[in-house]
Amino acid sequence: MNQTEHLHKQFPHLNLKPFERAHTATPWLDDIDSKHQRKLCSSLVEAIERSGLRDGMTISFHHAFREGDRVINRVVSQLAAMGFKNLTLASSSLMTCNDELIEHIRNNVISRIFTSGMRGKLAEAVSHGLMDEPVQIHSHGGRVKLLQDGELNIDVAFLGVPCSDEFGNANGTGGPACCGSLGYAMVDAQFAHKVVVLTEKVVPFPNMPASLGQDQVDYIVQVDSVGDPDKISTGAARVTSNPRELMIARQAAEVIEHSGYFKNGFSMQTGSGAAATACTRFMEEKMDRNGVKASFALGGITGSLVDLHEKGLIEKLLDTQCFDSQAAASLVRNPNHIEISTNVYANPGSKAACCDQLDVVILSALEIDVEFNVNVITGSDGVMRGASGGHCDVAAAANLTIVVAPLLRSRIPTVVKRVTTRLTPGESIDVLVTDHGIAVNPARPEIRERLEKAGLNVVAIEELYQRAISLTGVPEPIAFTDKIVGVIRYRDGSVIDVVYQVKEAEA
Amino acid sequence: MNQTEHLHKQFPHLNLKPFERAHTATPWLDDIDSKHQRKLCSSLVEAIERSGLRDGMTISFHHAFREGDRVINRVVSQLAAMGFKNLTLASSSLMTCNDELIEHIRNNVISRIFTSGMRGKLAEAVSHGLMDEPVQIHSHGGRVKLLQDGELNIDVAFLGVPCSDEFGNANGTGGPACCGSLGYAMVDAQFAHKVVVLTEKVVPFPNMPASLGQDQVDYIVQVDSVGDPDKISTGAARVTSNPRELMIARQAAEVIEHSGYFKNGFSMQTGSGAAATACTRFMEEKMDRNGVKASFALGGITGSLVDLHEKGLIEKLLDTQCFDSQAAASLVRNPNHIEISTNVYANPGSKAACCDQLDVVILSALEIDVEFNVNVITGSDGVMRGASGGHCDVAAAANLTIVVAPLLRSRIPTVVKRVTTRLTPGESIDVLVTDHGIAVNPARPEIRERLEKAGLNVVAIEELYQRAISLTGVPEPIAFTDKIVGVIRYRDGSVIDVVYQVKEAEA
Repeated sequence: MNQTEHLHKQFPHLNLKPFERAHTATPWLDDIDSKHQRKLCSSLVEAIERSGLRDGMTISFHHAFREGDRVINRVVSQLAAMGFKNLTLASSSLMTCNDELIEHIRNNVISRIFTSGMRGKLAEAVSHGLMDEPVQIHSHGGRVKLLQDGELNIDVAFLGVPCSDEFGNANGTGGPACCGSLGYAMVDAQFAHKVVVLTEKVVPFPNMPASLGQDQVDYIVQVDSVGDPDKISTGAARVTSNPRELMIARQAAEVIEHSGYFKNGFSMQTGSGAAATACTRFMEEKMDRNGVKASFALGGITGSLVDLHEKGLIEKLLDTQCFDSQAAASLVRNPNHIEISTNVYANPGSKAACCDQLDVVILSALEIDVEFNVNVITGSDGVMRGASGGHCDVAAAANLTIVVAPLLRSRIPTVVKRVTTRLTPGESIDVLVTDHGIAVNPARPEIRERLEKAGLNVVAIEELYQRAISLTGVPEPIAFTDKIVGVIRYRDGSVIDVVYQVKEAEA
Repeated sequence: MNQTEHLHKQFPHLNLKPFERAHTATPWLDDIDSKHQRKLCSSLVEAIERSGLRDGMTISFHHAFREGDRVINRVVSQLAAMGFKNLTLASSSLMTCNDELIEHIRNNVISRIFTSGMRGKLAEAVSHGLMDEPVQIHSHGGRVKLLQDGELNIDVAFLGVPCSDEFGNANGTGGPACCGSLGYAMVDAQFAHKVVVLTEKVVPFPNMPASLGQDQVDYIVQVDSVGDPDKISTGAARVTSNPRELMIARQAAEVIEHSGYFKNGFSMQTGSGAAATACTRFMEEKMDRNGVKASFALGGITGSLVDLHEKGLIEKLLDTQCFDSQAAASLVRNPNHIEISTNVYANPGSKAACCDQLDVVILSALEIDVEFNVNVITGSDGVMRGASGGHCDVAAAANLTIVVAPLLRSRIPTVVKRVTTRLTPGESIDVLVTDHGIAVNPARPEIRERLEKAGLNVVAIEELYQRAISLTGVPEPIAFTDKIVGVIRYRDGSVIDVVYQVKEAEA
């Protein structure tokens, strides 16, 4: 009796197979070329073919390049040329640069969309009924929850990076297309069945430490360009010199100082939106004067936050997305500027989310209503023009959530009776800072007391609403059809609101 | 009709639930204490209870502290005290420090074992028939394959670390118990259903970059000690001053120099075992003289490799385990000393394993036979006294695999007709370096030619075998029963050999 027979006789339940040869399970080790090159594809077409993508499957992308992205349109256009149909597009977000997707939706290449947001002509077309199925709008943390729960199941992720080695060790900083943190892409690399990396450069192994790891990446294809990093800090992530935005930002900094949370070791986040990011600039003097240092700043990282970090005022930067090229450059040189995935950042289903540690966050709003509910997705015309982002994630988790917004935008009230679309529930918002006064959620009387004691201009949110309509009149209600074009998913996956199709203006 | 009803009417297949409140899915956000402390346990008993561990389940540990480990015995002893039975122990390896497990195996607390190896009294007892089920011996890469394939299913991992924050961001370097790389633990943190971190220190959030991440850790318990780092470099990882071992190491360096693989940008690994690790010391002069720099060194990292790294002779250290305190200290200060998991290191089922990039590896052997098969688990008495480690993983993958061994140990031949136990197949071994000459696998005639041309003492492996038995006589065959006590799993999960129970000597 040989050993295998002995084993089967003595322990039949183990049911183990005998050894064949060293490379049975690893045939690529037979050959020096296949050892090194088995993931490399000579074209995007080859990568798509090898990925096993089929009609009806789900593809994903990250939006670290924001308005500078050159991967989404290119891949979808290639998929259209190859005749793919009925795909679900699960990009972490979509921008105005994605207008050309309209054509691929019309042609049924894309038939369903999951995204944090939409802008530009694509958002207009969707708001006017382009798609049969409603777009699913999720938060950054909520997207990971959808992946974790299996509702969103990515078949093939197409991830653009500036550099990768031949095994797929990739990062967002090694090359001209330096976008910084790959916090969104890290999640897709973890959850997608197949991961295709599109890279500008193929660098020598080992390209470590890596943001996307060799044990996550299936195929690699070199392309001319994955994105224009100069366009990251346009749109929602732009830097402002608008005096009203700066005034609001300064007021928000005052609120932080007197909120009770401005203590040594506190933590902070500034969301996208010019006034929110600008608030950082007013924190420095307060931190210096009070001898207060922050333990960390979280989320989208800006040059202003890097500046405070390098001055020793913020110990660590936990970065899920670089909002500008200064932030991306800092990620390379500062060891305490740390890249984190959106799972670690804000997923409510994660074993722990960093936002749960957050003291103070400053967020933007397109609208906020007298119940403090916030809309960051639809404009006053009912058309989608924004993104959910991490808004509801960090608002739910932070100890102090501040919303900054001008009372009016282009003579249209920001403070309203009822938001057109609710993304973040009023229970998560503590303070609203406008250019006409500061409103505190009645659920936080202790905050109101502290701000009043500091002499800040605290008013009731109803007063702000009354002031707004006294200046503009009550806006005409938006005319919607009853067709649902967007579903707003709260971070836990529940439906917090829907977006209806905008009615065409009468001719 | 409200919005949810509209949604269900228009898109019944979406089947989505309506929003309730902000913290429905995250109740810990209601309370500032639970926000911060929900993972912290006041005792190991509490952590075990909260982990949901039940009789018959699988527990795991890492062996980064090697002979200095203080977690395995402590946890198993606690489980015994709590009355647990019939557990599967899946430690990445076991050492002589684990002798007290014998009692818990006798009492059926532990009834099955997966490990890379065993030593000391535990290994002797198992070799003499302690357990009903055979011990499953796997390689480091093969262990991850078993996890990936679901054969090995860890219910609760107990992972000792020097420091962690309250969310579970942990590393192997922040504190007195500095063990360095947590390459084994990283895999358990990824695959286990529940992860308990035992930490000497609870440090402020965010303890990042982290080796084990907050999104992997469920429970945290502070303990007095997790391990003695001074005992890492004892046993198989000791540093030698034995002249014969140093002579073999010097010969191995000669082999590398003339093998054809000693080129600028080459890569290398030295396995455990004194002669193997000592080889590094002889590489420096050769690298300096030839102007050759290595792109990376892989696997278990030693102070000698760190020394070459800091002298600029090795660009990167890819570290799955620190073999001494110099290596552990280097991991803190050298940004190109990079911690990697055993999945990234050597799993044949990973999307890519670093060992596939390896040029040269120097490995040890307890026995090697005339077919170049290697035994690293059983001694000449048939008793287990070693570990599979990464032996068969890197041997299969490297371009040049060198085994170093003395011809005799305590008057017992190392080169034998047939190894007592086969762990690495002869097809994966290219060169054997002994103190009586160098043998080259006939499958690699080009290597033999290069070494002969360089004037090295190349002999046939049969000659080495004949020389050995001419000095010692042919050893008596070991007396085994036909009961299988160990199953040797090749890296792909197949059974490459079995270990039989040793027959008791007649009285």
